[in-house]
Amino acid sequence: MPTARAYAAPSATEPLVPTTIERREPGPHEVLIAIKFAGICHSDIHTARGEWGAISYPIVTGHEIAGVVEAVGSEVTKYAVGDRVGVGCYVDSCRKCVNCLAGEEQYCLEGEIGTYNAIGRDGKPTAGGYSTHITVEEDYVLRIPDGLDLDVAAPLLCAGITLYSPLKTWEAGPGKQVAIVGMGGLGHMGVKIAHALGAEVSVISQSLKKQDDAFRLGADHYYASSDESTFEDLKGRFDLIVSTVSSDLDLDAYLGLLALDGTFVAAGLPENPMSFGPGSLVGFRRRLAGTKNGGIRQTQEMLDFCAEHGLGAEIEVIPAEKINEAWERVVASDVRYRFVIDTSTL
Amino acid sequence: MPTARAYAAPSATEPLVPTTIERREPGPHEVLIAIKFAGICHSDIHTARGEWGAISYPIVTGHEIAGVVEAVGSEVTKYAVGDRVGVGCYVDSCRKCVNCLAGEEQYCLEGEIGTYNAIGRDGKPTAGGYSTHITVEEDYVLRIPDGLDLDVAAPLLCAGITLYSPLKTWEAGPGKQVAIVGMGGLGHMGVKIAHALGAEVSVISQSLKKQDDAFRLGADHYYASSDESTFEDLKGRFDLIVSTVSSDLDLDAYLGLLALDGTFVAAGLPENPMSFGPGSLVGFRRRLAGTKNGGIRQTQEMLDFCAEHGLGAEIEVIPAEKINEAWERVVASDVRYRFVIDTSTL
Repeated sequence: MPTARAYAAPSATEPLVPTTIERREPGPHEVLIAIKFAGICHSDIHTARGEWGAISYPIVTGHEIAGVVEAVGSEVTKYAVGDRVGVGCYVDSCRKCVNCLAGEEQYCLEGEIGTYNAIGRDGKPTAGGYSTHITVEEDYVLRIPDGLDLDVAAPLLCAGITLYSPLKTWEAGPGKQVAIVGMGGLGHMGVKIAHALGAEVSVISQSLKKQDDAFRLGADHYYASSDESTFEDLKGRFDLIVSTVSSDLDLDAYLGLLALDGTFVAAGLPENPMSFGPGSLVGFRRRLAGTKNGGIRQTQEMLDFCAEHGLGAEIEVIPAEKINEAWERVVASDVRYRFVIDTSTL
Repeated sequence: MPTARAYAAPSATEPLVPTTIERREPGPHEVLIAIKFAGICHSDIHTARGEWGAISYPIVTGHEIAGVVEAVGSEVTKYAVGDRVGVGCYVDSCRKCVNCLAGEEQYCLEGEIGTYNAIGRDGKPTAGGYSTHITVEEDYVLRIPDGLDLDVAAPLLCAGITLYSPLKTWEAGPGKQVAIVGMGGLGHMGVKIAHALGAEVSVISQSLKKQDDAFRLGADHYYASSDESTFEDLKGRFDLIVSTVSSDLDLDAYLGLLALDGTFVAAGLPENPMSFGPGSLVGFRRRLAGTKNGGIRQTQEMLDFCAEHGLGAEIEVIPAEKINEAWERVVASDVRYRFVIDTSTL
């Protein structure tokens, strides 16, 4: 049984501590991955701290995983030892429901099996990427193209696909006015991807602090949501708004920025119910939608697209001993734009 | 100056009374229409009673108008005296904005000019269909095909297009599961049109009272929203839900009925803000949208479609003296499914 070094949260309120966990020997269709880098997603923190519901402890979080195949099961056909691979938000799903069959495993009707905080097919709790190894069914493993370094690729497995998917679904591209709300881990990838897709990209962020970065990453315009004139000046402007913020928004104000048939997509999840005046949608046949990472096929497409366009995440690589500090900085929005753990330091 | 007999609301609280109003001599591009039938829409009542904001009195409501051309201006090319025509919710728009140019005059950026409760290009208040005549720019007049009787055609100009438009926009058709929520003036046309478009049609209505009617009009299934099992049994079923009700809905419950990428369209406007848990949209990339009657081009398409498929409204023709009683019955939802005023009795 392969043993992995890991960092785990012992409870909702204690700092993460070093530990060791057991990983499965790869079954016939599984690969054992030596994890090289793992991104820190705000979801890790929400989950570990019980902010999204009670969970079992200890928990090893992390669903932005990049590494190298270390061993393969007897029937594995897609990957070989030494291949550069990634794992995202889920490691399995029912494979039989209409959504799985459509390649939209993230919407599996039986519930996809999360990379952490779930029960795997072996009946044991899944454990995530803050560890040196992970064993995953080959069908849920992604190939990281040569053009992408593993450290900047890791955050693509959640932040990248979570923005790529709505940008593709709602057809960001040439001639389209796209706004990205919030310029954090998700938002900065949204800017890069929307720009690479050919859309005219605006960032709407709380302040002007990140304006220079946004322009460097591909934004054409930048607006502060704290400036009231923003909502007056941009009325009816956008074909697509992708919100990455999880704070409560004035939804009516943002819906007012949509052009005819425009869509506001909530990629960030507020805690409280969302509310709006019915007239905000009716006026321009506007739409409001949800989204949630992406299917395996689309995640591979995203990785290939990012490699082709040289799009990695903007990252700060940290050693394991800085994880707890990094979590505090994520909560304080003090990161440009993703922390990535160097797992050799675990 | 042509004079028309009409019924007008003298105030928000008094019954409608007979009156006479002046109509314009048709300008070069206008037609004078002898109104034969005018449908009663719940909007007429909301507006006249000031429930949607303060208005000027007296007001002549009615935006479901069917009649015959009585005179044409010198430059009119589309219509001739004797032609069977209709007028819907608006009689003009700016004609220059991006939405007007796209043939979506109902979303005119300067605000389309309502058939009543608006100021026309002549600077005078517009007055609606509860009258014997109306003068309208030919570009905002619809042709009623020979296959449609004028009385059953009148309600198509609002109720018909208000359902046809979202059913077309969100592609109701063969292989699609469509639900119509509410089986009133709008809803019953939604059933007919969705069925004619080839969709599998479900009605979700408060009670089972109208089940036989729904099946007769083309519904495949009928469910009572008062039966709690409805929301359990139909989870994830529909590609498109068009709600025609203006009471407050449990939006989370209805969103739960949508399949992957399904859309809930609010064609009926609740008074209060709409609210839902963010997870209700995220789970299946669900969408929530607004809609509002249709453009002139699509309204003509709808009339042609309805004529081709023999789809008129289910109506109860009433004389003018019954208008006040009919309004009370509309408020009490006691109509199957639209009152239509015979304007010869005005």
